[in-house]
Amino acid sequence: MTNVKVDITMSLDGFIAGPNDRPGEGLGEGGERLHAWLHDLDSFHELHGREGGEASPDSDVLREAMESVGAVVLGRRMFDNAEGWGDNPPFAMPVYVLTHEQREPLEKEGGTTFHFVNDGIESAVRQARAAAGDKDVHVGGGADTIQQALRAGLVDEIHVHVAPMLLGRGVSLFGEGLVGVDLEPTRVLHSPAVTHLRYRVVA
Amino acid sequence: MTNVKVDITMSLDGFIAGPNDRPGEGLGEGGERLHAWLHDLDSFHELHGREGGEASPDSDVLREAMESVGAVVLGRRMFDNAEGWGDNPPFAMPVYVLTHEQREPLEKEGGTTFHFVNDGIESAVRQARAAAGDKDVHVGGGADTIQQALRAGLVDEIHVHVAPMLLGRGVSLFGEGLVGVDLEPTRVLHSPAVTHLRYRVVA
Repeated sequence: MTNVKVDITMSLDGFIAGPNDRPGEGLGEGGERLHAWLHDLDSFHELHGREGGEASPDSDVLREAMESVGAVVLGRRMFDNAEGWGDNPPFAMPVYVLTHEQREPLEKEGGTTFHFVNDGIESAVRQARAAAGDKDVHVGGGADTIQQALRAGLVDEIHVHVAPMLLGRGVSLFGEGLVGVDLEPTRVLHSPAVTHLRYRVVA
Repeated sequence: MTNVKVDITMSLDGFIAGPNDRPGEGLGEGGERLHAWLHDLDSFHELHGREGGEASPDSDVLREAMESVGAVVLGRRMFDNAEGWGDNPPFAMPVYVLTHEQREPLEKEGGTTFHFVNDGIESAVRQARAAAGDKDVHVGGGADTIQQALRAGLVDEIHVHVAPMLLGRGVSLFGEGLVGVDLEPTRVLHSPAVTHLRYRVVA
């Protein structure tokens, strides 16, 4: 069964990137440290086509996330960032980009094809569902896109990797306005580097 | 050794109360559900001088928090709320209230004495430390007071009980501006009702 999920790293104070997260500047000022838990994982190396890294429970969490996803939904700004990743972006699957720009699909190496969706989040998720087969759809970001999907009731699961820090400023994952969304905790895993919280959206 | 700690329930999107949390209105609109995990715990019943409730790991977490604390620091708004709790407020220990009002200590039943501190958070925490003996100091809230204590580098531990919900609006625990606070996860416990995250502040 296809689940539509959010799967993202957040600081304890709710930020997923620092301020000024312009294309090519990664996760904004101070934001790169959010992803410190990823850098030495063997699954993260694999995702980026590199050798090495270490096996660990955190690495298993990332690998599980990678293997369960069959299609991705991104906002336009995330796509602009992703373009910076070059000819072989680390998706290897169809990616549906929300944009006002009308544009033919863009095929990259390694199985990543960007499809440009002009008619909103519901359409993007519907198309991604169809492409994902029996795998999951990952609403990858940014925060605006994730909030749109939550507001539209399209999200089945929220996986949040809580980085042990207060970032203090930047891009808030949930922002304000997602009033009265009930969640059911379905799994908690943790290491000294990160706490993995998984929820099912129940209402 | 006395630790100064924050210990509070937060929604996954970072709120500790709903909007309009006026004295006598509890936790603001929609906020009461943040504390749903507490209501059936035998330790919570005990805290409020009532019989009954259920033993559980969540109840042990609350009891541990209660038993470890020797003094409390509150902001003025929290005190106004606390006054609503009547002649026997559930502290049973010295409480230091940050306020501009000059006022004699106010002794209540059951061991609670409110002391009014006019010279800022550092003074309030210092006085609470002295009163706590070898127990901990609990910076109880509200968010402004907690943020002041964090900004002044006075907090040793952050215990956050993550309620499985998005509240969407209200009082943000950390707000914005606590830039670059590094945390070390020291314990994670969880139940279907709540996830207990504990951190040591390292920088």
